[in-house]
Amino acid sequence: MVNGSYQWRFKARKDLTSNSGITVRGMLSKLHGAIDANDPRPTVNLGHGDPSAFPSFRTTPETEDAIVSAVRSAKFNGYPPSVGILPARRAIAEYLSSDLPYKLSPDDVNLTSGCAQAIEVILSVLSQPNANILLPRPGFPLYEARSAFSHLEFRHFDLLPERGWEVDLDAVEALADDNTVAMVIVNPGNPSGSVYSYQHLQKVAETARRLGIMVIADEVYARVVFGTNPFVPMGTFGSIAPVITLGSISKRWLVPGWRLGWLVITDPNGILKETKIVGSIHGFLHICSDPATFIQGAIPKIIEDTKEDFFKNVVDKLKQAADICYEKLEDIDCLTCPQKPAGSMFSMVKLNLPFLDDISDDMDFCYKLVKEEKVVIIPGISVGLKNWLRVTIAVEPSSFDDALGRVKSFCQRHAKKQ
Amino acid sequence: MVNGSYQWRFKARKDLTSNSGITVRGMLSKLHGAIDANDPRPTVNLGHGDPSAFPSFRTTPETEDAIVSAVRSAKFNGYPPSVGILPARRAIAEYLSSDLPYKLSPDDVNLTSGCAQAIEVILSVLSQPNANILLPRPGFPLYEARSAFSHLEFRHFDLLPERGWEVDLDAVEALADDNTVAMVIVNPGNPSGSVYSYQHLQKVAETARRLGIMVIADEVYARVVFGTNPFVPMGTFGSIAPVITLGSISKRWLVPGWRLGWLVITDPNGILKETKIVGSIHGFLHICSDPATFIQGAIPKIIEDTKEDFFKNVVDKLKQAADICYEKLEDIDCLTCPQKPAGSMFSMVKLNLPFLDDISDDMDFCYKLVKEEKVVIIPGISVGLKNWLRVTIAVEPSSFDDALGRVKSFCQRHAKKQ
Repeated sequence: MVNGSYQWRFKARKDLTSNSGITVRGMLSKLHGAIDANDPRPTVNLGHGDPSAFPSFRTTPETEDAIVSAVRSAKFNGYPPSVGILPARRAIAEYLSSDLPYKLSPDDVNLTSGCAQAIEVILSVLSQPNANILLPRPGFPLYEARSAFSHLEFRHFDLLPERGWEVDLDAVEALADDNTVAMVIVNPGNPSGSVYSYQHLQKVAETARRLGIMVIADEVYARVVFGTNPFVPMGTFGSIAPVITLGSISKRWLVPGWRLGWLVITDPNGILKETKIVGSIHGFLHICSDPATFIQGAIPKIIEDTKEDFFKNVVDKLKQAADICYEKLEDIDCLTCPQKPAGSMFSMVKLNLPFLDDISDDMDFCYKLVKEEKVVIIPGISVGLKNWLRVTIAVEPSSFDDALGRVKSFCQRHAKKQ
Repeated sequence: MVNGSYQWRFKARKDLTSNSGITVRGMLSKLHGAIDANDPRPTVNLGHGDPSAFPSFRTTPETEDAIVSAVRSAKFNGYPPSVGILPARRAIAEYLSSDLPYKLSPDDVNLTSGCAQAIEVILSVLSQPNANILLPRPGFPLYEARSAFSHLEFRHFDLLPERGWEVDLDAVEALADDNTVAMVIVNPGNPSGSVYSYQHLQKVAETARRLGIMVIADEVYARVVFGTNPFVPMGTFGSIAPVITLGSISKRWLVPGWRLGWLVITDPNGILKETKIVGSIHGFLHICSDPATFIQGAIPKIIEDTKEDFFKNVVDKLKQAADICYEKLEDIDCLTCPQKPAGSMFSMVKLNLPFLDDISDDMDFCYKLVKEEKVVIIPGISVGLKNWLRVTIAVEPSSFDDALGRVKSFCQRHAKKQ
């Protein structure tokens, strides 16, 4: 008791209260807070990676059926094993093996609550005193937020827009030291929209091997590709350097809210087992929550029953959107898209500030845009690149047209007078 | 490169690889590993807190219907807000308010992936240099495991079997210092099976206030009571000291695998908001995964549609099991149950080693029991009490009878010759 009033001893964690802007989720909620409630037009959100609410991006009836039959069976009401139930792990091992030069075992697969928890698991396991990890810039800010929370030092290497957002491998070599434990690549790229070639991925693996580090391959957008490069999983090169592959059904099946992801050991030489990284992952999973058991139970049917047509249709729509986006942006002076997106659901667009009159930076652009036009776009700074924008292409085609029209009006209104 | 072979720089986290035994989950998987595959009898698991696989403990059709209609609506395929969707938070606020002297707002409710993630959230938020937390002994070992992982010091206070497993409040006062931030109580008790009286909970709150700490009330077994004390939520005393209430649908609705829990601010004076603990919780939820959105979407219907009969039926079965357990154990010399369970799904049973011939401790008892009789019981050491046993009463009545019979044979076989 101090001066007659109670003194409470608990304190807030400043690193948690102040960092809500660091994630895309935090940024989105701030931008939505800036919307003018009196503007009668619908809000268009080009900030998310979640098109599931649009009629064009509804998941298949087969996936819904799989959930219904799992829940009706009453076989999946109990706790799952911490690595996930065997039939689901087996189905995912087979699904991923079809793209790999070797066969995964169900024991290589660990189920997680979305790819977000897979990121949490591997960064928690790697966080040790003095260790550091190399992250791409631009990137997915949950990596930074989770590393910071875990006191794992992170260092950024650049992705090069002029080279199709490839990894600056010289920068990777220059950044690494004896305490570097891993590098992260996101392919297909969020936010870059790029899809790496076989050759580039091989070079990434060779660099990792030279440095003695593992590759964490975020493939949450695996197979969501519509450019010239096919999707090649990083695990293809797991015999050069050990790879941990993160993924989920979120994006390909358009069900991010189902929270079913995986962390897969794509390491045919067994280095991660031998060095007990796998044991640490299992140990950490013992103290984590899990994806819902009946959603795990639905996985074999979801993978087996979904028709190729569904995937093709989604990819076709994204390709159309990528074309529209690229074309429309060509027409807006203050914005440049250096490369048409070839995968994932995003495009990185450069903001040419000299063309604008009263816009100080990307954050200012995005706040004014949402206030004046009810269009939400994530400022590049949120994904590591100041004065760029991350634009979602996964929206209903009609609203996408409308939104880019509003962006154009906004840019014209704020254009520097000649 | 060292001596021509590659040296990998990443290292396992020893604290994760070695602690898998510390959780009940880890212990269960070790004991299951010791089962004699040649024994034709069915394994009886008296180690879990998950009776959902037994026909007598199947959830209601109404809860399954709620899931089916949520998933069929396609309204819940996208990412939820990090605190959870509003209709679910509103329904839980109303559900919990009916037991409280004040009304909760939906903003007081944060949805989590089961109660396990609620534990993770609050311990992560409280983990700061030098801080410590007070945990009950016996208790639920995820608290210890998560505290250790977060480098949050924990200190144990005893629960007193001779006083119905009440908190030793003198011990709490003696343990606390200026760096103590919280104490945990689990009511109804896991593993004690006790249900605290209104008076005792009030004393807990008064002690917390005197010490300037918050109470973390783990009420995952809320309303699962069958003794003389009614269930009183700790939040009743939230105006004496701030309370954070953890819970889930896991136990009352018999769906632990659905992973839908909550962390609720039961603090009518707003101290946790003012001290920014609430802000830290929200910040942490921004970097966490979530319970599946369509399960959140089903919550209003699950709460509204489940009939009282279902709950009554489950509680009646547990009461019967508690009676059988108490009676049968009276008949086994080497085991003493100091108090008939009155809530939750467990009973704590004392092992009287002087009556046994070749059993060195509780761990030895449990390993030999599972090998010889295929009955899985968690040794007390796993929940903090050496030479006790934690016995689940939530099993199909017929197998419970059989299991206690096997325990009796085992004890007779190992009894000290007179």
